[in-house]
Amino acid sequence: MADKLSTDPYKGVRDFYPEDMAIQRYIFDTWANVAESYGFERYDASVLEPAELYRAKTGEEIVNEQTYTFRDRGDREVTLRPEMTPTVARMVAARRRELSFPLRWYSIPNLFRYERTQRGRLREHWQLNCDIFGADNQYADAEIIALAYHILKKFGAQDDDFVICVNDRGLLNEYFSKTLALNEEQTHKMYKLLDRKEKIATFAEEASEIIGKPLDERELNGLMNERLSACLAALGELGVRNVEFRPSIVRGFDYYDGIVFEVFDTSPENNRSLFGGGRYNNLTTLFGGDSIPAIGFGMGDVTMRDFLETHKLLPNLAIGPRVMLLVASPAAIDEAFLVREEIRGHDIPIAFDFSGRKLKDQIAQAAKRNIPYVIVVGDDEVASGTYTLRNMSSGEEVRGTIAELIEKIR
Amino acid sequence: MADKLSTDPYKGVRDFYPEDMAIQRYIFDTWANVAESYGFERYDASVLEPAELYRAKTGEEIVNEQTYTFRDRGDREVTLRPEMTPTVARMVAARRRELSFPLRWYSIPNLFRYERTQRGRLREHWQLNCDIFGADNQYADAEIIALAYHILKKFGAQDDDFVICVNDRGLLNEYFSKTLALNEEQTHKMYKLLDRKEKIATFAEEASEIIGKPLDERELNGLMNERLSACLAALGELGVRNVEFRPSIVRGFDYYDGIVFEVFDTSPENNRSLFGGGRYNNLTTLFGGDSIPAIGFGMGDVTMRDFLETHKLLPNLAIGPRVMLLVASPAAIDEAFLVREEIRGHDIPIAFDFSGRKLKDQIAQAAKRNIPYVIVVGDDEVASGTYTLRNMSSGEEVRGTIAELIEKIR
Repeated sequence: MADKLSTDPYKGVRDFYPEDMAIQRYIFDTWANVAESYGFERYDASVLEPAELYRAKTGEEIVNEQTYTFRDRGDREVTLRPEMTPTVARMVAARRRELSFPLRWYSIPNLFRYERTQRGRLREHWQLNCDIFGADNQYADAEIIALAYHILKKFGAQDDDFVICVNDRGLLNEYFSKTLALNEEQTHKMYKLLDRKEKIATFAEEASEIIGKPLDERELNGLMNERLSACLAALGELGVRNVEFRPSIVRGFDYYDGIVFEVFDTSPENNRSLFGGGRYNNLTTLFGGDSIPAIGFGMGDVTMRDFLETHKLLPNLAIGPRVMLLVASPAAIDEAFLVREEIRGHDIPIAFDFSGRKLKDQIAQAAKRNIPYVIVVGDDEVASGTYTLRNMSSGEEVRGTIAELIEKIR
Repeated sequence: MADKLSTDPYKGVRDFYPEDMAIQRYIFDTWANVAESYGFERYDASVLEPAELYRAKTGEEIVNEQTYTFRDRGDREVTLRPEMTPTVARMVAARRRELSFPLRWYSIPNLFRYERTQRGRLREHWQLNCDIFGADNQYADAEIIALAYHILKKFGAQDDDFVICVNDRGLLNEYFSKTLALNEEQTHKMYKLLDRKEKIATFAEEASEIIGKPLDERELNGLMNERLSACLAALGELGVRNVEFRPSIVRGFDYYDGIVFEVFDTSPENNRSLFGGGRYNNLTTLFGGDSIPAIGFGMGDVTMRDFLETHKLLPNLAIGPRVMLLVASPAAIDEAFLVREEIRGHDIPIAFDFSGRKLKDQIAQAAKRNIPYVIVVGDDEVASGTYTLRNMSSGEEVRGTIAELIEKIR
C-alpha cells in the first residue's frame, strides 16, 4: 500500500504498552497511597485551560513559545496546561467560601510543553501535585517536605540516595535588600545568578560584579531565620534528616514567595534535580479576594522512573491474568469458556486462547507472559471433571475439581 | 481588582472537586476491575495524535469540524483524539510481530470533540475501551459483550435495567445485496435510515422509497446467520439473557464490519443508548500488512454516571482521611504532629488542623467532611499518654494509648 498510515505516535509523546503501563500504574498508585496517608484528597481538571491563566504569572513569552496554545472556533485562546499550580489555585479560589481549610489536595495531571524536537525531550509528562491551602506555618512547610520524603522512601529509596535542599525566598529578599542594600534590578540579577550557581565556575566573579563588592559566601551560607529553622526542626522531629539549607535553591516560578525546596539524586550517574516545590501565598489573589496561603510540589513520572531505574528500585510487576486456561482440543473450547467464567466469578483474573492454536504454543505463550498459573482443559478433564493446576514458576501440579482449584489459587 | 482572572474552567470541560473525583475513581476502578478479571491488560497513549490518523476512516469533514485539530510549529497537524480505536489499532499494528494474540487490551482515555457550545454538551469525556485482537469467532464476540454486561452488573444494575441489542453488519450486507438486490447507493441509504429507525415515524415510507417496493419488516426482524446465532448461544451459556437481535443497530463508525451491539437503558426517565461497540476486522490494514481481526467497545464516564444516578446505584463514597486529630490547645500542636506521624506509619490516612482554630470548629469540620474517627490531642492527653478515639457515626468512645487506638482503627 503506497499511502499506508504511519504507526508512529505524534512527535515527543509516548505510547504505553502494557509493560510500560504497569510501571506507570505502580508509580501513580504509590504516589496516591502516600498522599492519602497524609489525608490528601484527589482532584482533577481538564488539560484544556484558558490561555489567560498562564499569562499573568508565567509570562507572555513562555505561553507563546513553550506551550501548546491555539484559538478555538469561538475565538477563545486555549492552552494545553503546562503545569497544575494555576489550575488548583483557580479551583480553590472559585470555592473559597465552601471549602474547609486547611485543604490538602493532590492530583496526577498530564502536562504539556512545546519543546523543539530533540532526542529524549518529551512534550508531555504526568506529574504528582500535592498542595496545602490555608495554612502558613512550619507544620505545613514540614508536612509537604515530609510527604515528598516519604514518597521516595515508599519506593524503597534510602536516605543517602537523595538530599532535600531548602531555602526561604523571604530570607534572601531580606539579605539582599537590608544587609546588602541592593536595588530591585540587582536583586533580580542575583536570583538569576543563584539559580545557575551549581552549574558555573564564575559565581564569585559574577556576584561581585552585580553587588559591586565581593559576596561573603560564608555569610550567605550561614543565613537562617526563625521560620526556616522551625521547619528544619519539625522535619528533624519527623525523622527526616537528609535535609540541608542551600541558598542557591530559588526555583524558577515567579509565584514562589516563601520556603522553596528541591530534591537531588545523590547517585554519581544521575546526579541531578528530581523535583521541587515551594510556598506561593499570593497566587490566589490573581482571582480577586484575599490571598490563601499555599505550599506544594510537583513530581514528574519521567524523572521518577529514571530515579527508580538508576537505583534499581523497580519491582517485577505482574501484567495480565493470574490464570491461563490451556485448551487441549477444539472440542474443549466450549467447556473452557464456561470454566473461565466460573473461576472469574471468584474475582480471579483469567483468560484463555480461543484461537485453536496448538497446546505447546499456548504453554509457550503463558510462559513468555509470566502467567503464574495454567489449567489444561481437554476431553479427559471435561469427562472426569478433574483438572490439573500448574504453578508455572515452581512447576508444582495439583489435581482437583474447579471448585478445589479455585481455593488453591486464592 | 479590575483585571482579575476568571475562576471558570475552559468552556465545555469539567473541574473534578474531591467529591466528583471520588465518583470518577469509583467508576474507573470498577471498569478496571472487571476488565482485568477477563484478563485484559491496560495500555495508554497520549491525547495528541497526528491528524492523518482520523482522516482515513473518520472522514475529512469530521476531522475539520468536530475535532480539536491544529498545526504545531513544526507544521505538523495534530488532533486531540476524539476516540481511542484508531490509536489502539496503530499501537497493535506497530508491534504485530512481537505481541501475543489473542490480545485483550483495555484503556481509560480522555477524549475530545469540538462541540458548538450548548447547555450540557461537553467537549471532553473519559471512556473505557476494551478490545480483543487476533480472534474472529463467536467466543471473542460473546466475551466482549459479556464483559460489558458484567461491568453494569458489578455496578449493581439488574438485568431489566438495560437491554443489549445486537446485529451483524455482514447479515445486513447480504440481505441488501443478495435478497433485495440493492446497489451500493441504496445500501448506503438503507444503513443511514436504519440508524434513525427508532427516532422516526416514517421508516416504512422512506424504506419503500429507497428500495422501490415495501420493505418486509418481519423478514428483516427475522434475519439470522450462523455466527450471530452462535454468539447469542454463547451469551446464553454465560447467563447473559437480556440480549436481543435488532436490525436497526448499525453504529456510525465506518470501520465496523461484523457484529455490532448497543446497550440501552430501559428506565422510562433515561431511555437512551448507553454505549456500544462492534467488530472491525480491517482497520489495521490502514497501517499496511494483513488485517488483524478485532472487536471492542467504548463506555463513557458521563453516560455511566447518569445511568448510576438514574438507577440510584452510586454508593456513599469516602472522601478524605479515616482519622482527624483535634488539637485542643496551641501547646498540643507539636504533639499532634508526632501522633499523626505515628498513626500514619501504620498506613492509616490521617490529618489534623494545624491552624490553631477552636476545638468546636474542628469537630464541626470533621463532621461536615464525614471523617469516620477523631482523636482529641490536648495538654491532659499529652501528659497522661492516654487518648480518646471517637467513632463519629456511632458516637462510641474508646480510651487508650496511641498504640491501642491504632489497633481499634485497623
